[in-house]
Amino acid sequence: MDYHLVSEEIYNKLSLEAERGKLVGGTQFTLGQSSILIASKDGIGKLIEEWLGTWAIKNGINISPNQGGQSFPDFYINKDNSYLEIKAFDLDASANFDIANFESYCESLSYNPSRLNADYLIFGYQLCGSELRIEKVWLKKIWEISCSSERFPLKVQAKRDVIYNIRPATWYSSKARTQVFRTANDFVNALYSTQKIYLNIEISEEEERFHRNTRK
Amino acid sequence: MDYHLVSEEIYNKLSLEAERGKLVGGTQFTLGQSSILIASKDGIGKLIEEWLGTWAIKNGINISPNQGGQSFPDFYINKDNSYLEIKAFDLDASANFDIANFESYCESLSYNPSRLNADYLIFGYQLCGSELRIEKVWLKKIWEISCSSERFPLKVQAKRDVIYNIRPATWYSSKARTQVFRTANDFVNALYSTQKIYLNIEISEEEERFHRNTRK
Repeated sequence: MDYHLVSEEIYNKLSLEAERGKLVGGTQFTLGQSSILIASKDGIGKLIEEWLGTWAIKNGINISPNQGGQSFPDFYINKDNSYLEIKAFDLDASANFDIANFESYCESLSYNPSRLNADYLIFGYQLCGSELRIEKVWLKKIWEISCSSERFPLKVQAKRDVIYNIRPATWYSSKARTQVFRTANDFVNALYSTQKIYLNIEISEEEERFHRNTRK
Repeated sequence: MDYHLVSEEIYNKLSLEAERGKLVGGTQFTLGQSSILIASKDGIGKLIEEWLGTWAIKNGINISPNQGGQSFPDFYINKDNSYLEIKAFDLDASANFDIANFESYCESLSYNPSRLNADYLIFGYQLCGSELRIEKVWLKKIWEISCSSERFPLKVQAKRDVIYNIRPATWYSSKARTQVFRTANDFVNALYSTQKIYLNIEISEEEERFHRNTRK
């Protein structure tokens, strides 16, 4: 797969550190003379993302956090406008992070097809009491962590007939592995087919715009 | 006001520590060799609540966290079934914590009128970069931190005609001080009047149950 060299460098270093059992830590809250260690999973993904920015500086790796906060991408890979997204999940549960908001993704991909080439760096952690341990790191493209579902061509989070987010496949599981998409194209087709079924429309403006902007 | 002796002991100790500038700290996240200090306000209230449990043990104060997690109360004051609630807000913004979910409170107060006597320990903090500093502590009863609003006899958080939470008065502000309720009774009347206006009903079952259970 065509990952960015900088992403591969990050992935290689972090995988090695994880294998050697070096990516261990946690969250400590202090006020005055008393400190507590936090045993909650809330916000771990965001903490790891912030931490990666500091780790990258220490390791001389040239990525910049997106100052926009919540919005895509988490990091810019400098100089050539590539994107790096950070995800994390508890290996003792299953991958339940949001890949992206479904409708925003349909739209933003249509204006900016290069979003399809974003690299996803994914951290699999275990939380043992308050000790956080990164056991595994993956480097993926979006079509390598997404799949179809029974209800829609693309697996999404839907509640009461409203689609919220694109949800991940279980690409990492030996027991319950789901079939991920084979190509970027398969993913894009599933994305816009899902949109057309969802909105009950025959033609998706976003899909047409995506193809126009891809040809440029 | 009739605060519990244990609450007053906690309040006196923490106020003194805050005045002396000793309640300073923050949140640190570590993985391997890199640590980051967190500059976000997310979850500070919950962290302070957890921290208080540890602080109490160190100070020989006999309170027990509610193992139920999210539900009322945050702490039991041991031996006599009293309640201690913990709230926190950023002094540079305004008090925007949820006192309680409106409908749950209407109901639970009706079954357990002693909830009205819960003590509220409130932390006013400043966050300067990643440095958290408790500047001020208050010990209050619910009617001393709540007030009426233009729309309802009780100030609540309402979105699109749905009432979510009971929201605090600005009891702490010299500039924008709101008039809090004078008595527990005034608060209870405002609570159930709001419920009757909100649900467009003439008689509140919860209010009647509250009075029956209070008389016992």
